Amino acid sequence: MKISFIGSGKVGVALAYTTALKGLAQEILLSDVSADKAYGEALDLLQCQAFCPQARITHGQIRDTANSDIVVISAGIPRRADEPRVMLLSRNASLIAAIVKEAVALSPQCILLIITNPLDVMTHLAYQVSGLPAERVIGMGTVLDTARYRSYLAQHFSVDARDIDAYVIGEHGETMVPLTGNITIKGVPLATLPAYDNTVITRIGQEVEAASGQVIALKGGTVYAPAASACEILGAIVNDDRKVLPVSTFNSRYKTAVSLPTVVGRHGAGPVLNIPMSPSETTAFTHSVANIKRYVDELKV
Amino acid sequence: MKISFIGSGKVGVALAYTTALKGLAQEILLSDVSADKAYGEALDLLQCQAFCPQARITHGQIRDTANSDIVVISAGIPRRADEPRVMLLSRNASLIAAIVKEAVALSPQCILLIITNPLDVMTHLAYQVSGLPAERVIGMGTVLDTARYRSYLAQHFSVDARDIDAYVIGEHGETMVPLTGNITIKGVPLATLPAYDNTVITRIGQEVEAASGQVIALKGGTVYAPAASACEILGAIVNDDRKVLPVSTFNSRYKTAVSLPTVVGRHGAGPVLNIPMSPSETTAFTHSVANIKRYVDELKV
Amino acid sequence: MKISFIGSGKVGVALAYTTALKGLAQEILLSDVSADKAYGEALDLLQCQAFCPQARITHGQIRDTANSDIVVISAGIPRRADEPRVMLLSRNASLIAAIVKEAVALSPQCILLIITNPLDVMTHLAYQVSGLPAERVIGMGTVLDTARYRSYLAQHFSVDARDIDAYVIGEHGETMVPLTGNITIKGVPLATLPAYDNTVITRIGQEVEAASGQVIALKGGTVYAPAASACEILGAIVNDDRKVLPVSTFNSRYKTAVSLPTVVGRHGAGPVLNIPMSPSETTAFTHSVANIKRYVDELKV
Amino acid sequence: MKISFIGSGKVGVALAYTTALKGLAQEILLSDVSADKAYGEALDLLQCQAFCPQARITHGQIRDTANSDIVVISAGIPRRADEPRVMLLSRNASLIAAIVKEAVALSPQCILLIITNPLDVMTHLAYQVSGLPAERVIGMGTVLDTARYRSYLAQHFSVDARDIDAYVIGEHGETMVPLTGNITIKGVPLATLPAYDNTVITRIGQEVEAASGQVIALKGGTVYAPAASACEILGAIVNDDRKVLPVSTFNSRYKTAVSLPTVVGRHGAGPVLNIPMSPSETTAFTHSVANIKRYVDELKV
Repeated sequence: MKISFIGSGKVGVALAYTTALKGLAQEILLSDVSADKAYGEALDLLQCQAFCPQARITHGQIRDTANSDIVVISAGIPRRADEPRVMLLSRNASLIAAIVKEAVALSPQCILLIITNPLDVMTHLAYQVSGLPAERVIGMGTVLDTARYRSYLAQHFSVDARDIDAYVIGEHGETMVPLTGNITIKGVPLATLPAYDNTVITRIGQEVEAASGQVIALKGGTVYAPAASACEILGAIVNDDRKVLPVSTFNSRYKTAVSLPTVVGRHGAGPVLNIPMSPSETTAFTHSVANIKRYVDELKV
Repeated sequence: MKISFIGSGKVGVALAYTTALKGLAQEILLSDVSADKAYGEALDLLQCQAFCPQARITHGQIRDTANSDIVVISAGIPRRADEPRVMLLSRNASLIAAIVKEAVALSPQCILLIITNPLDVMTHLAYQVSGLPAERVIGMGTVLDTARYRSYLAQHFSVDARDIDAYVIGEHGETMVPLTGNITIKGVPLATLPAYDNTVITRIGQEVEAASGQVIALKGGTVYAPAASACEILGAIVNDDRKVLPVSTFNSRYKTAVSLPTVVGRHGAGPVLNIPMSPSETTAFTHSVANIKRYVDELKV
Repeated sequence: MKISFIGSGKVGVALAYTTALKGLAQEILLSDVSADKAYGEALDLLQCQAFCPQARITHGQIRDTANSDIVVISAGIPRRADEPRVMLLSRNASLIAAIVKEAVALSPQCILLIITNPLDVMTHLAYQVSGLPAERVIGMGTVLDTARYRSYLAQHFSVDARDIDAYVIGEHGETMVPLTGNITIKGVPLATLPAYDNTVITRIGQEVEAASGQVIALKGGTVYAPAASACEILGAIVNDDRKVLPVSTFNSRYKTAVSLPTVVGRHGAGPVLNIPMSPSETTAFTHSVANIKRYVDELKV
Repeated sequence: MKISFIGSGKVGVALAYTTALKGLAQEILLSDVSADKAYGEALDLLQCQAFCPQARITHGQIRDTANSDIVVISAGIPRRADEPRVMLLSRNASLIAAIVKEAVALSPQCILLIITNPLDVMTHLAYQVSGLPAERVIGMGTVLDTARYRSYLAQHFSVDARDIDAYVIGEHGETMVPLTGNITIKGVPLATLPAYDNTVITRIGQEVEAASGQVIALKGGTVYAPAASACEILGAIVNDDRKVLPVSTFNSRYKTAVSLPTVVGRHGAGPVLNIPMSPSETTAFTHSVANIKRYVDELKV
């Protein structure tokens, strides 16, 4: 298994480190617009080998990603303070489109994992320009938001977070939808717990929506939860788990990439599962899809 | 963490091996009515240390289990072909009662994990004679049957078995109750899957009920699925996971030990969760409880 | 990764279980001369999936092993009490030769791992009839004896057994050679330890030579140490570790399969390393090689 | 197991993340002079719980570290551009002394793991002010430098880095001593390899000495190799491995803290092993010890 990481920023490298610790790849390649950055990060990971599962840790240009099984794209240009969002979108879009085209030409059998924001728009774009089937173009989507939701619920109800069956769906962004009905703990309805309180769930959902901003304000960026979430997707692919994760994939029904619970394995992501929603959740999800499509449409301007 | 295994039969030793592979204990002690058997098994495990997490692997008498954090009891006298079940019950009961009393006196802070059959009756008995709070006397219960149910459902629906939220509850024995309604895959209703078919669920439930007999007929005994299931319980205790598992514990509402989804952590097992049942499932569960109580009552004869 | 196990006896199945627990394969196939045995063992492993890394667990005939990445052969006919060793040799040899030819025809890119005894003779034979390069025909060799040696030394000197650099080389059998000079603990000479005593090392070497017989006498067979040892080899292959293990491979210098420290990775086993030996160790090793060759020659009768 | 991290900088938090991924603790507490930083980092780790072994992840003041089993200290004041090294030393020394006193008063049974630089001086100081036995005051020492040495040697000789038995000893700093003689690969002398070349070893030793500066120049700091190295020490303690690691501990023979191969387990670090050195290595080590002592003496000014 060769996994290439295009973009060696904080999340990309924390993800590569997690991938190495879990022994998911025999070859890990780091690439970055700054060759020095990619080289330094590769050295920092290579020096872990004495205490890690073994992998060839290398760095290089996009051309060195050839024959990757998985290509992870976290590259992106940060927004300048004075520029409108549409400009950012179009600038990152050009970058991602160019990377995707080059990477897929070099690794036509690869699975793409998209981490660059705005997540769903970039995943949609990557699907379009790659020519790959939708199931092999996977956005991290709301897996991170879902991780936060489950972790907070687990903390509140004092159970294993891995047993919490709860989802955030829709856009990985401001219109995300934490589903509050039908949450179960390993199949047992949360509502049967003595500590259950509807207002608590709503409050935790709001904390999840605020989590990214809160962590950025407190420590300057989100790093480890995104890395652990993205690595869960990588693990499901590498080990062919067929695990259910709310990744973002192009959805032919909604004509855009959007996150819903989806089976993830060595084949990629699919099928998408039908999770029940209340009428208000359906409305919120529809609104979220519309929001992603609005940005997708801007790309075409 | 010191874990002692009283009974070094096939399941007990496969469980000790799994415990060693997962690095759950720093001290593993094997005991058996046959000192040679315990010694041989301890040697076979000790010789794995070069390729395993480290633990002191020893063997000894029950007195050597002193200061255990967890005591696993799988000891038991097999049924003679010509003796009635009640005789078996009373003979194993005397043995388990004696072991429990001695073990708990030596390790008053321990958690007991009961594997000896008839499982629920022995768990009930161990609770009674130990004087320990119910949450620290845990029977393997229907964790094994549930493992089979989830594994079979996962195979049929082609998803990660660890994502299947399905339970077998009640007696670990002939009256076990596979719950067929409300099964979810990581929270998503199984019934939303295109491949879903009610009759398939019923058939898989029947296969689970038949599984133990089938494996015994084919290979002479069940070993690895029981070991993996019991080790899931040990892991939840050691790592304080607060994971939901259908262990058997004395249930004050039903006045007997019986399996229901229960939170398992370093404190032991509890609280028991309220899993929804259909009217027919409630009837079957009530019948299963009554069956366990019938054997519990025989103990008092 | 597809790993097929031909032979579903105690060691073969304990190895398949260990392989499943470690998540080394996405497909595990069990085969046995008794189809019922293979089916029962496969069910016992399949039922673990709810608590294990995911794999397709199947059973079948040798023809079902097609396209395996690794084929593990532990099949073998036990010796009848009244038959001479040569007869056993020739009977198992016919069996192994037939299995190897069929298996390699179905999986021409596979690596063979031989566990059937007499180990070195069967490895030699498998090399000859397979037509595979020597590095892809690997006998478990003295990895098991080495595991015992390191585990016992670690216990005596109270250090991590994985840090003990000690080897048993030569035949996996009565003429095995525990190397007693130059033993190090993660590179530090054992002889610098205050507890060091030459006679202790000699005694432990003798205990290793006696270990197999001792465990068989006490518990009826060796199971877990062989399984853990063989799985160390499988792990080194699957993860491409390039780990040093004393596997048995055909050695062109000695014109027979024999165990020496060898680099093991995804390519198979090789190169063989040059471990220093004292004159008496060299003599013992030469004697051990001669012993293997004597049996190898019997095959040709 | 409760592990508290005092200092939530890049290395401290990467270490806490690694600790969480490996499931080494049931409680992880982050503390920092910036309460916001500690809070943000704790949130980032807490949000991983959905995909991680379970632990209570909290943040707080040093007083909240009470009853820790292990206290990891990576806190430190960075050097101002215009201040002499002695000033830095004395400023960090005051900080570390105060932290150690407070932490040990709250957790008198704890083991201290020191990561703050200058490493050996801070470890020496922590030993002095803590009143703890030397084996429970452990500096990361040259474990990181050793990790680099082994990783580079493994890459060059194409073998598993975990099998390389090579050490850097002495000061974790400019006078570190990469031992070039007697390097073995899992006990087999490196010099027996065809690719062996004395000048290569010397060059790799020099690369190790330069590695920290190189990574800082390329990516702005060293993060993951220090985290993986420190976590190897934590793992050896938590799992009571009795693994050999070149940690820094107060050495009564040299009257200072200094790194030599040492057995690390639940008891802490000790005994120190006697690794053979060539005359020139002995000279270099003596020089390295003298260098540490020079700084230790400055502390008393």
